[in-house]
Amino acid sequence: MKLLRFGAKGAEKPGLMHEDGTIRDLSGVIDDLAGDTLYPEALAKIAATDASSLPVVEGDPRLGPPIAGTGKFICIGLNYSDHAAETGATVPPEPIIFMKATSAICGPNDPIVIPRGSEKTDWEVELAVVMGKPAKYVSEDEAMDHVAGFAITNDVSERAFQAERQGQWTKGKSCDNFGQIGPWLVTPDEVPDPQDLPMWLTVNGETMQDGTSATMVYGVRFLVSYLSQFMTLHPGDVISTGTPPGVGLGMSPQRFLKPGDVVELGIKGLGQQRQDVVADS
Amino acid sequence: MKLLRFGAKGAEKPGLMHEDGTIRDLSGVIDDLAGDTLYPEALAKIAATDASSLPVVEGDPRLGPPIAGTGKFICIGLNYSDHAAETGATVPPEPIIFMKATSAICGPNDPIVIPRGSEKTDWEVELAVVMGKPAKYVSEDEAMDHVAGFAITNDVSERAFQAERQGQWTKGKSCDNFGQIGPWLVTPDEVPDPQDLPMWLTVNGETMQDGTSATMVYGVRFLVSYLSQFMTLHPGDVISTGTPPGVGLGMSPQRFLKPGDVVELGIKGLGQQRQDVVADS
Repeated sequence: MKLLRFGAKGAEKPGLMHEDGTIRDLSGVIDDLAGDTLYPEALAKIAATDASSLPVVEGDPRLGPPIAGTGKFICIGLNYSDHAAETGATVPPEPIIFMKATSAICGPNDPIVIPRGSEKTDWEVELAVVMGKPAKYVSEDEAMDHVAGFAITNDVSERAFQAERQGQWTKGKSCDNFGQIGPWLVTPDEVPDPQDLPMWLTVNGETMQDGTSATMVYGVRFLVSYLSQFMTLHPGDVISTGTPPGVGLGMSPQRFLKPGDVVELGIKGLGQQRQDVVADS
Repeated sequence: MKLLRFGAKGAEKPGLMHEDGTIRDLSGVIDDLAGDTLYPEALAKIAATDASSLPVVEGDPRLGPPIAGTGKFICIGLNYSDHAAETGATVPPEPIIFMKATSAICGPNDPIVIPRGSEKTDWEVELAVVMGKPAKYVSEDEAMDHVAGFAITNDVSERAFQAERQGQWTKGKSCDNFGQIGPWLVTPDEVPDPQDLPMWLTVNGETMQDGTSATMVYGVRFLVSYLSQFMTLHPGDVISTGTPPGVGLGMSPQRFLKPGDVVELGIKGLGQQRQDVVADS
């Protein structure tokens, strides 16, 4: 099942992508894709609905992030050995975690907004895990019972803010529109192996990232279990699991985004995103 | 005005501390202390209410955090020169910022829960700024127009998780019940100078921290303006502005919390907190 939220920013309705290619309106079935509605048991009830009977959403609406009420936007640093190498870092002996501000979250095709004073805005295609029910001190074996599904994130990053402005990384990760999520929340039944997902990112049609979650150092089950040792993970919390090689910071010469650029990214089975790069007003 | 939220966790109602020493129920006036209700203009309307006419809350209810819907729990690191010195660090040339998980937020007198595997759970009394209306690219002069008020936070910190587990600091700052806020949200009219507030913390009655916001390196107005250059600050966002000297990490020998300890802390004009230290179940 591919769940989504459509409509104007802050006024999104829940929906799903039907197998016939139409968006169907779920607002008669659930209030929103948030909180208790993300419990795997609640998602199973939605899956039992006859999607063909749901109203078709006409036109080409804006998509919002596929979940609402995200309390934590947790990221894993340097979680691909080849990405760590390109940035001159080594793979850490346990996961590096940091937070993006939840106010950075936006829809999958919303613009990347370059903040004032930025000269080093960069891209990062990532596999996101969306939590479905509370998880604390869970084992790897139990981890997937707490997951609502998967999505694409663009972990947009301002490298100077991140590393040259006295840390911590949060400062370069949390600008408005630095967290595109979606297009869909894809339930785990459609993602048989989250550690075998090709992913890619282009800038102006040129391939920058062409990787796979198969080279992820710390996998999804491990990360959910690991994080749950430090804090309770709640429904709607997002874990962005790190990026494969090909970010602008790692290039020689380095390359960063400028207004007018177009970024496209995708992960097999999870859809794709497209973003215009604009300057902040 | 001293605003608060009372009742069981997750079911708090809004209230205020009346000058006669009683808690008055605000739930007939506002839904909650969150979102638009925190705009300074909205708080001014509450202030215009005749508090004496509001229902008295009987008994001694639990207090929750004085605001709901916090999207960001931003902390400033090493923001007191004497605290930086005690931890062996130097004052940074611009603020260090990091995030605590919002799931760490709890009431002012809720217990400090020592997470499994922790041996270095520490305390930090801090002055918190609560945002009242959205702030982006605001100047220092404009900053206070966007602030709802002030509160006490205990920025509870697990030092091994923070510094010995591959960073970033978030890992040692985000455990459940690591963010006591309250007892009150005190509006700015009652805090004529946030840079002149004595603050203290005791463990089992013994004074550990005895400082003042007068020795804060980066002050409240500067911090609001500074952070707003990186991200939009929203109503209910909390900025915890750093701690004065006297944390367990800085002692010789180092000293950390253990089950059965009692922590009390306060800031002049903002009330005080009292926490039992318990082991996680």
